[in-house]
Amino acid sequence: MKLGFIGLGIMGTPMAERLAKAGHQLHVTTIGPVSSTLLELGAQHLETAKQVAEKSDIIFIMVPDTPHVEAVLFGENGCAEASLKGKTIVDMSSISPIETKRFAAKVNAAGADYLDAPVSGGEIGAREGTLSIMVGGDESVFNRVKPLFDVLGKNITLVGGNGDGQTCKVANQIIVALNIEAVSEALLFASKAGADPARVRQALMGGFASSRILEVHGERMLKRTFNPGFKIALHQKDLNLALQSAKALALNLPNTATCQELFNTCAANGGSDLDHSALVQALELMANHKLS
Amino acid sequence: MKLGFIGLGIMGTPMAERLAKAGHQLHVTTIGPVSSTLLELGAQHLETAKQVAEKSDIIFIMVPDTPHVEAVLFGENGCAEASLKGKTIVDMSSISPIETKRFAAKVNAAGADYLDAPVSGGEIGAREGTLSIMVGGDESVFNRVKPLFDVLGKNITLVGGNGDGQTCKVANQIIVALNIEAVSEALLFASKAGADPARVRQALMGGFASSRILEVHGERMLKRTFNPGFKIALHQKDLNLALQSAKALALNLPNTATCQELFNTCAANGGSDLDHSALVQALELMANHKLS
Repeated sequence: MKLGFIGLGIMGTPMAERLAKAGHQLHVTTIGPVSSTLLELGAQHLETAKQVAEKSDIIFIMVPDTPHVEAVLFGENGCAEASLKGKTIVDMSSISPIETKRFAAKVNAAGADYLDAPVSGGEIGAREGTLSIMVGGDESVFNRVKPLFDVLGKNITLVGGNGDGQTCKVANQIIVALNIEAVSEALLFASKAGADPARVRQALMGGFASSRILEVHGERMLKRTFNPGFKIALHQKDLNLALQSAKALALNLPNTATCQELFNTCAANGGSDLDHSALVQALELMANHKLS
Repeated sequence: MKLGFIGLGIMGTPMAERLAKAGHQLHVTTIGPVSSTLLELGAQHLETAKQVAEKSDIIFIMVPDTPHVEAVLFGENGCAEASLKGKTIVDMSSISPIETKRFAAKVNAAGADYLDAPVSGGEIGAREGTLSIMVGGDESVFNRVKPLFDVLGKNITLVGGNGDGQTCKVANQIIVALNIEAVSEALLFASKAGADPARVRQALMGGFASSRILEVHGERMLKRTFNPGFKIALHQKDLNLALQSAKALALNLPNTATCQELFNTCAANGGSDLDHSALVQALELMANHKLS
């Protein structure tokens, strides 16, 4: 089966490399350089998304945001300029669930199948093939692509129809951000009240306050290790998707909005490239600055 | 060792019963009735906290809020009217960490030891002796009372000095409320976007969004089982402690404040006695009501 891969960034490169190492013929395009590993594995570097779509049966997309997916699919020299009949588009970017439904309908109208399949697990998960993959689309299409997902990830779920994979990813990013914020408020409260936040965290593990975020990001806050991990700038992008979609759906997400403001506060103070657990620093600076 | 127990409500009654069943002589007082079980186990029902303090070596307190503890300790016919020299006060109520430090200092000045030892685990934990107990006070006093805590709970942690047990409990209640709110926003978002929130929750379990709240309270939201559990009215009391303390400590807890407002919205619509997972209904009613 001939595979296309569009977008070879921090995530796309190791994912494409895993597919090539698994023995698949790849046709790729990207705005940056193509890794020497990919070229040595026989990947064909093409100029445009249209050319990739012409040469491939299944076309993976891994680009930053909604407008990039739209450009790759429907822009000048995009996939839709090729004949898509019988092909499958698999968008693994994290983008708008609402726009995804529109993209899928247009792709279906061109005679092709569409899966939205955003991931979590970061660069390490991409390299090691341990990504979580949240998929939206038809079950038959999912089953056809599943062996390729198995090369890329471990926890692979068909959530529902087109868009539902992206919706699930947004829901994931809402909970992760809000749980980071919750641990931040609790540990800062403990510290300001004179307790040892490390002992408080230890006492809370195992009870109803327990979470992966209390374990992993709580420890980062205590050890002041804010190298990413997952950058604040990326989480801002994801909460922007949440808040834009909430506006379109006529829905109130008050704590997501506050978390975005706290990430904005981090960014205002030079923290965009820190790990998202550095959100705690937004609360700290609001409590520790000397007004005059 | 002669034990006192002041406050025999939903939590205090089963806790005192466990201590009596373990063979301890109890002197008790409370504003309501004393359970027949306790009387059959030989508990002496006295009129006042002062009388309980006179007859007991270790005096447990389990009352609703900060003013009740203050009244029991320092009010008319309170413990402090007895000679407290050499005795130990163990306050297991959930109250202000700041006021606790003041109470402990006054009790110490009267020649007695003080532990703050709030619990989590609810009525079931109290009955089964599986409470989590978060303790603040001197290690030697903690070690002396520890065998009695072992009768009442399982996860017993000395967090730090006086007040730190209460601080830990407030931190716990902040995280629990904010994680409930996080799951509420995420599942409501998923539902409004047209996905199946049950499948979204399933896909998120095991990843970075995973938490006890996603497991337990997420399921309550999906099954619409809002019988407590832990009542909204009680969580409002606890977030009030958090917000009052934050004001005193000069600290910004934005999402705790929003959660309290959402609990207030539940209360405004008759939900005070529902389980705290019904917080999701505050977000739902804000999204589903028809303005005119």
